[in-house]
Amino acid sequence: MTLSVVLLSGGLDSTTILAMALKEGDAVALTFDYGQRHSREVERAKRISEHYGIQQIVFPLYLQGFDSALIKKADEIPEGVEVREEIPETYVPARNILFLTVALGVAESIGADRIYIGVNAVDYSGYPDCRPEFIEAFQSMAEVGTKAGVEGRAPRVMTPIQDMSKAEIVKVGKELEVPWELTWSCYRGEEKACGRCDTCLHRLKGFREAGVEDPVPYEEME
Amino acid sequence: MTLSVVLLSGGLDSTTILAMALKEGDAVALTFDYGQRHSREVERAKRISEHYGIQQIVFPLYLQGFDSALIKKADEIPEGVEVREEIPETYVPARNILFLTVALGVAESIGADRIYIGVNAVDYSGYPDCRPEFIEAFQSMAEVGTKAGVEGRAPRVMTPIQDMSKAEIVKVGKELEVPWELTWSCYRGEEKACGRCDTCLHRLKGFREAGVEDPVPYEEME
Repeated sequence: MTLSVVLLSGGLDSTTILAMALKEGDAVALTFDYGQRHSREVERAKRISEHYGIQQIVFPLYLQGFDSALIKKADEIPEGVEVREEIPETYVPARNILFLTVALGVAESIGADRIYIGVNAVDYSGYPDCRPEFIEAFQSMAEVGTKAGVEGRAPRVMTPIQDMSKAEIVKVGKELEVPWELTWSCYRGEEKACGRCDTCLHRLKGFREAGVEDPVPYEEME
Repeated sequence: MTLSVVLLSGGLDSTTILAMALKEGDAVALTFDYGQRHSREVERAKRISEHYGIQQIVFPLYLQGFDSALIKKADEIPEGVEVREEIPETYVPARNILFLTVALGVAESIGADRIYIGVNAVDYSGYPDCRPEFIEAFQSMAEVGTKAGVEGRAPRVMTPIQDMSKAEIVKVGKELEVPWELTWSCYRGEEKACGRCDTCLHRLKGFREAGVEDPVPYEEME
């Protein structure tokens, strides 16, 4: 049976890919605790793992020496959906490389044959480490740089929502009965989602276009 | 001027590449604190950084979910120099990929143009993540997966001791006045180096063949 390591942040995309991986076999969730401005993401990822009754590895990552908008204060985070021509401010150097590498080490340690990552080229075309050519280059590196790879059984990096719009992701998630109410997408960490930040706007747009109601409470909607 | 991120473990090889990097320009040392069985390596790396008057980043890495001989007990570590036909027991899944990826993130954050890593194909031919083809694959991935890469200025991974024997490394180090007395290679963490483990034997052989005295005290030599 297929065993997958799924990068689970607790958001819409990663929870959907977890549901997709579980449709194919068994899975272990891998969540990073990297000094996010709020701990809600990690807590939601834990609850989602419990929901599915799977093992969750919480990997602590203190990004010493990294320049990262994800560990900046909330008021420094840009608002609104922009047309992106440049690499966004929220870019964290080598972030997905780091996440995938830890997933690779875990996958090799437990003998998993797949790694699921929720990169999405449509929404995040500005991030170099979300592009298909990056995933391919990572795969090639994993094949020469690991024992599993040398033995011809390198874990395969799966990007099932790579080319989906947020609305398509919501539709797939609905079909797989993803527990939306447990997911968290907001860049801020208040009691309710802000409804104004980049990720909130993308998420709301996705639900709206899919004709599905988002069960998560928003500040704006009170 | 060249700015390098140097992976510094506090051993013979990494201290030599630090000296080589400093000959070319400025450098920041990057040391991992990953639950090694003893903290001597991290302490020695700190003293070596102080010796050179450079900034040292200590990156904590708790390898949750990893299968690793480096965090096993001392009596589980194999003794003696073996002819290696298989990948050694001390192989840690994705270890150098992880180290290089953190170095890449730090390099991108501080605008460094080089990353130095002390991989050595002669001594460690059994490790997939020490081979030239791995370094090349990592470089290709860094070029497509980072902002710096997309902008045509991906940090270059430097492997200056890749093809050197331990004796050659000792000779280069002597020329560059590497502070041998501060370095630590032993897999065990006693007061003196054991002189029996794999790395001790490689080190002693290197000094002997180079005709240089190793100033580090060994148990065997009392």
